[in-house]
Amino acid sequence: MRTRIINANIYTPKGDKAVKGEAMATLEHLPNSEIMIQDGKIAYVGPIRDDVEADEVIDAENQVVLPGFIDSHTHLVFGGYRPEEFSWRLRGDTYMSIMERGGGIACTVEATRKATAEELKKKAEKYLDRMSEMGVTTVEAKSGYGLDRDTELKQLEVIKQLAEDPERKVDVVATYLGGHAMPPKSDMTHQEYIDMMVKEMLPLVKERGLAKYCDVFCEKGVFSIEESRELLQAAKDLGMGVKLHADEIVCTHGAELAAELGAQSADHLLHICDEGVKELAESDTVATLLPLTAFTLREEFAPARKMIDQDCALALATDLNPGSCFSGSIPLTFALACIYMKMSVEEAITALTLNGAAAVGLAAEKGSIEVGKDADIVILEAEHPSFLPYYTGMNAVCRTIARGKTVFER
Amino acid sequence: MRTRIINANIYTPKGDKAVKGEAMATLEHLPNSEIMIQDGKIAYVGPIRDDVEADEVIDAENQVVLPGFIDSHTHLVFGGYRPEEFSWRLRGDTYMSIMERGGGIACTVEATRKATAEELKKKAEKYLDRMSEMGVTTVEAKSGYGLDRDTELKQLEVIKQLAEDPERKVDVVATYLGGHAMPPKSDMTHQEYIDMMVKEMLPLVKERGLAKYCDVFCEKGVFSIEESRELLQAAKDLGMGVKLHADEIVCTHGAELAAELGAQSADHLLHICDEGVKELAESDTVATLLPLTAFTLREEFAPARKMIDQDCALALATDLNPGSCFSGSIPLTFALACIYMKMSVEEAITALTLNGAAAVGLAAEKGSIEVGKDADIVILEAEHPSFLPYYTGMNAVCRTIARGKTVFER
Repeated sequence: MRTRIINANIYTPKGDKAVKGEAMATLEHLPNSEIMIQDGKIAYVGPIRDDVEADEVIDAENQVVLPGFIDSHTHLVFGGYRPEEFSWRLRGDTYMSIMERGGGIACTVEATRKATAEELKKKAEKYLDRMSEMGVTTVEAKSGYGLDRDTELKQLEVIKQLAEDPERKVDVVATYLGGHAMPPKSDMTHQEYIDMMVKEMLPLVKERGLAKYCDVFCEKGVFSIEESRELLQAAKDLGMGVKLHADEIVCTHGAELAAELGAQSADHLLHICDEGVKELAESDTVATLLPLTAFTLREEFAPARKMIDQDCALALATDLNPGSCFSGSIPLTFALACIYMKMSVEEAITALTLNGAAAVGLAAEKGSIEVGKDADIVILEAEHPSFLPYYTGMNAVCRTIARGKTVFER
Repeated sequence: MRTRIINANIYTPKGDKAVKGEAMATLEHLPNSEIMIQDGKIAYVGPIRDDVEADEVIDAENQVVLPGFIDSHTHLVFGGYRPEEFSWRLRGDTYMSIMERGGGIACTVEATRKATAEELKKKAEKYLDRMSEMGVTTVEAKSGYGLDRDTELKQLEVIKQLAEDPERKVDVVATYLGGHAMPPKSDMTHQEYIDMMVKEMLPLVKERGLAKYCDVFCEKGVFSIEESRELLQAAKDLGMGVKLHADEIVCTHGAELAAELGAQSADHLLHICDEGVKELAESDTVATLLPLTAFTLREEFAPARKMIDQDCALALATDLNPGSCFSGSIPLTFALACIYMKMSVEEAITALTLNGAAAVGLAAEKGSIEVGKDADIVILEAEHPSFLPYYTGMNAVCRTIARGKTVFER
């Protein structure tokens, strides 16, 4: 199967690893070009050629062609919803009073435990469809709403099914997040739960091939730096990659721990300190910022400008989840990044493509329009990439191509 | 043609005029109900009946049923785009330097003058389709990108065609906004342009039935209070309704002028003063707030909470235009209203339904689910209206019904 995209006005980052600092602002611009896709891979990128045969020809005249977007941080698989809690929070109710009324993560844990795998899968597929419409071709999906053996495995098995679906529109990367919170209504100590994850869960997850990464919510009152280090080191010892929810609510120096461990990514980082920025910049860890969450929680955004200026590699992701951020909006992510976090359009594109790919360990296969990479491509009904934030909160995507196949078309 | 909606979980404001102040928070809730639509009108609302025949039955189980949304302030018909200007603004360039480079409204005026009516119409139809997907069933559309006789008429004629299209998905209300700015590169004085609008344009617009309202950008450096009063009084004398862009950039007491003239609406109001709030509250003028514009311009939002608490009738609209706010996002409007402007979900719904209808003089026909009104209905794939802001920036609409006909279905 050969698909040709002609008259393509391509903007793409380049390379097989995360782009750091000021280089994030540089995209290769190939106007009036051709892309040839063969067997799901990019086989040619360059000037339009004569006499080339293809099974399908897509004319991208007056459009913009970008690599597929990579949403490298989501909690895609969950039971139930928490709309009332959202209303309570808008009224100014405190987190504690919400917890007391059965809100918070415990609410989602209960609903996720109750849901069947089939129900969870059906719901996740709906969100994957939505993501695909917004140009997302790869998504990371975390467990972390079970917090017990069987539900964590159920979530991860659902993610595995989504990842292995031959009809899938979006590639899925799995992350084990047993360390999302302490299990509710449990009398385990933190150490007992860490032990359970280290001794029972991680080996099981590894053995069954259920997750590429282990993640932990390293935060004051959740898991400490020491607890996080113990859990993630155990995952590394098993050959898994690691990620951290770091410095979201207060600075606990999670960014520094991420750098120390060589984590694939450190995520959130609203309260990253100067030392954290420096250590991330010197590491290969991607800093994944989640502006939608800050937006819905009315928090200050992470210091994106400062981090880029100090040479960090930034990714942007949605954090889709039923609590703090029930949104998968790529358009709003671009708007917030460019209008409120002082990122340029080019930097935001790099963050949602090549650096997103790097945040899930796929920078060699995805994230740019280069020969040999997966043919994950987004076409915008737009005359310039600026339309991504300019058409504010609106979806400018008119076609999403995943592994060479059109999976969404407007 | 009879369409029955069963198992409808209805939330609706009630009445045939704008709802003021604290009453905005009260929606009638009719769970497990039936709506019967006959010939495009609502013929029955109440408990589900036995043995009723219909040509079409829509089962709204587990969904939320609302009146169609009314976007009462847009600049729907325009030539060209201004994405570069958006990037310049993000970089911090001043309005004046943007104007000097050919940006600003003059850029859109030039493109609108050049465009054919057919081109303008085709483009506007694209946005109407998008609006319809987000649950909008009525939209107000302004001229104001011609600023000369022929282009203003061209814009209004396009709007008239959209409004009279028998296949239309969205009802369209026309507003003449010749007073959007002074014509660029013209040597007319303000008074000469006002005279031209009063003596030539308004009678023409009225005679040809091209606009229901006359609007003016009453702002420091644009049209003064006195100039605005002269123009709008002339429109009133011809029997037209009037609207004002008021107190957007600084307070010029446009709100008070709106109240004085009995305007249908006063719009923007970011810098409304206490006296303005008081006078609007005592008038029948709807205060139309445009949060998307404040968001894209990084301005403080209009003081919605204070205005509701002091008994104003608030509408929300998108302000869709190619410059300050290229967005028609109803989901983001709900998110901004509820998360950032401290409006409750119920108040935001009233603002986007019945009060939006009142802002375009259609509260007797539209804006609520009541017998006799137009069957303009939105169905949300959601268990509660809170999903509107909770599913942040995402479209929760799964069906839009306009005058009894399904015009969008997910």
